[in-house]
Amino acid sequence: MIDFKVTKRSKRSSARLGVLETPHGIVETPCFVPVATQATVKTLDSEEIMETGSQMLISNTFHLHLKPGEKILKNHGGIHKFANLNLPIMTDSGGFQVFSLGFGRDHGASKVEKSAREEVIMKGDQPKLLKITEDGVEFTSYVDGSKIFMGPKESIKIQESIGADIIFAFDECTSPTATKEYTAESLLKTNRWADICLKVRKSDQALYGIVQGGKYRDLRVESARFTASRPFDGFGIGGEFGGDKAQMVKMIEWVTAELPENRPRHLLGIGYLEDMEMIVKAGVDTFDCTVPTHYARHGNAFTSKGKIDCTKTKYLSGAVSKQPLDPECDCFVCQNHTKGYLAHLIRAHEITGLKLLSFHNVYFFNNYVAEIRKKIKKGLL
Amino acid sequence: MIDFKVTKRSKRSSARLGVLETPHGIVETPCFVPVATQATVKTLDSEEIMETGSQMLISNTFHLHLKPGEKILKNHGGIHKFANLNLPIMTDSGGFQVFSLGFGRDHGASKVEKSAREEVIMKGDQPKLLKITEDGVEFTSYVDGSKIFMGPKESIKIQESIGADIIFAFDECTSPTATKEYTAESLLKTNRWADICLKVRKSDQALYGIVQGGKYRDLRVESARFTASRPFDGFGIGGEFGGDKAQMVKMIEWVTAELPENRPRHLLGIGYLEDMEMIVKAGVDTFDCTVPTHYARHGNAFTSKGKIDCTKTKYLSGAVSKQPLDPECDCFVCQNHTKGYLAHLIRAHEITGLKLLSFHNVYFFNNYVAEIRKKIKKGLL
Repeated sequence: MIDFKVTKRSKRSSARLGVLETPHGIVETPCFVPVATQATVKTLDSEEIMETGSQMLISNTFHLHLKPGEKILKNHGGIHKFANLNLPIMTDSGGFQVFSLGFGRDHGASKVEKSAREEVIMKGDQPKLLKITEDGVEFTSYVDGSKIFMGPKESIKIQESIGADIIFAFDECTSPTATKEYTAESLLKTNRWADICLKVRKSDQALYGIVQGGKYRDLRVESARFTASRPFDGFGIGGEFGGDKAQMVKMIEWVTAELPENRPRHLLGIGYLEDMEMIVKAGVDTFDCTVPTHYARHGNAFTSKGKIDCTKTKYLSGAVSKQPLDPECDCFVCQNHTKGYLAHLIRAHEITGLKLLSFHNVYFFNNYVAEIRKKIKKGLL
Repeated sequence: MIDFKVTKRSKRSSARLGVLETPHGIVETPCFVPVATQATVKTLDSEEIMETGSQMLISNTFHLHLKPGEKILKNHGGIHKFANLNLPIMTDSGGFQVFSLGFGRDHGASKVEKSAREEVIMKGDQPKLLKITEDGVEFTSYVDGSKIFMGPKESIKIQESIGADIIFAFDECTSPTATKEYTAESLLKTNRWADICLKVRKSDQALYGIVQGGKYRDLRVESARFTASRPFDGFGIGGEFGGDKAQMVKMIEWVTAELPENRPRHLLGIGYLEDMEMIVKAGVDTFDCTVPTHYARHGNAFTSKGKIDCTKTKYLSGAVSKQPLDPECDCFVCQNHTKGYLAHLIRAHEITGLKLLSFHNVYFFNNYVAEIRKKIKKGLL
């Protein structure tokens, strides 16, 4: 179980400071939650994850169900012991992956594949390669091509076996281009599934309900009110938001205005640096995103002076090459390595380079949100 | 400069204990030397390299010349500062890569490519895609296709810019299938190049001469005597030895019998676990090999009970899955992670898994040689 206390409310915005207590430690909110898709933050080991200042991780139920399978995690005493991760962990419900990625995008998210997928999904709103029923979704495993069924009961059972501190209700994640009619109908199903999740849960894990409703204000408000009316321990705000930041913030504000103040709110899968203040000001407590590790694996480092593309030759030589990625950063990488060396590693396709950039980026993101917490404390946000 | 003292000679074999002092620290010999091809041990960072108990590294002149170029390393104050590696470092001469890999194998050493390469090399003994002259070798850069010339003068100049503690003379590394006539002629050239290397060296780096001579006893002896007669600070034993272990050991013994006792001997590019005792008993002080990191990146871990293939499902479940890779190993990985988790990471293609196996393997190899030193100390080897 978790305990959440709001310790300060901003007078300037919906931002708040909080303390989230979990069986595996305390999280100061607002908090960035690095993604540990397959029970590791990509390229980092458990010690490094702690050294980046990460407070909480989120793992993927869909991926862990397929590989290695939740029974193996349960047999090891749950994800914390399995992966030697002694910090709070969330698992998502698997819904997002089942609906968005269940049939192809996962195996190398190329643009072609994505547009093909979207074409498939969008015709008549309902994905053609998934079979959605009242009880859940049937899809094809990318691991062995077998048919897999996942619904609210299955998701909760899997998440109980994985054993995270916080689990999520199984929802249908609708596309931002879905019609209002489809989104409304989907929402009713998500709500019925929410009640099933609450009913079947046997563990003492915290269970968050998910607010959907797409881009439609009335549906978002309806979903928030419904979810708030249920005994969830916290709330996830879900949906693919598309590229419109202003729309995204409005959408979050519609939702947080309806949610109870004393329970935590997690924004699923959003966390570009430039979005963080907006998200926090809209009343979000925690949020996860693959940006720091994903960009690192493409050779990009985030710094207080902007993004650095370490694939460029310009960082190899001259005065710039002898500087750390970010002179203002006190992480292990910035204290020990230069831009020149890191650019060399990235250009030479050395895994060490991907690890060092991932470490720095996760540290940088965590530190960025620590600064946001300071701003709220000082009444500046 | 270096200082080398043999502290004990075995009565049972040619094995010896020694202490090699370098500007960046002391090396206890016999010593396994992990390979840091491109100024990093693949997947590990500088701190992890130290934590594996590595005493000395060897980097590749050929690769560093092409990427990022030795000027960049020199500009950073040499390889130690460039890569933040505070331990003794060797660079090979580039000869092996120029002759063996200069035209293709480097870009993904598939069997097809290798046999194609050998066909090209072997016709008339002299590689067809290289232009070997009295002054050195012209070859094509795999980075940008440009023509590059490397000979003894160029190699020493590049190695001086890289700034390792120990550098090697530029040699022609002949194939184990080369004729005696070709090998003998090649040896004369290697000897002439050795004198040029000694003459052009300006730095106070230690310079090792390389003993060649293929599989021919008289040529090996001739090469060893020639090299021993020159003021080299130590000796490399070179050549592709083929798969015959007994032949390899004999060949090393021919050489070490001719080399002076008071200077260190490095065996280039050999170091399978099962070879180590043989090599050491034949009188070798240091030896490098990519085996621990290469095997790790293919999912294999070395343990006191043999090799473990972490790609296999059998390590995912059951009692075995909860054990460390090696219950007798006290490395970070064995203290913190199970076979089950590591097998999951490898099977899920997580870079973290490649790093953890690399760390364990390098630690295991270093520890294995530490045990060999103990055996010599106790008079058991």
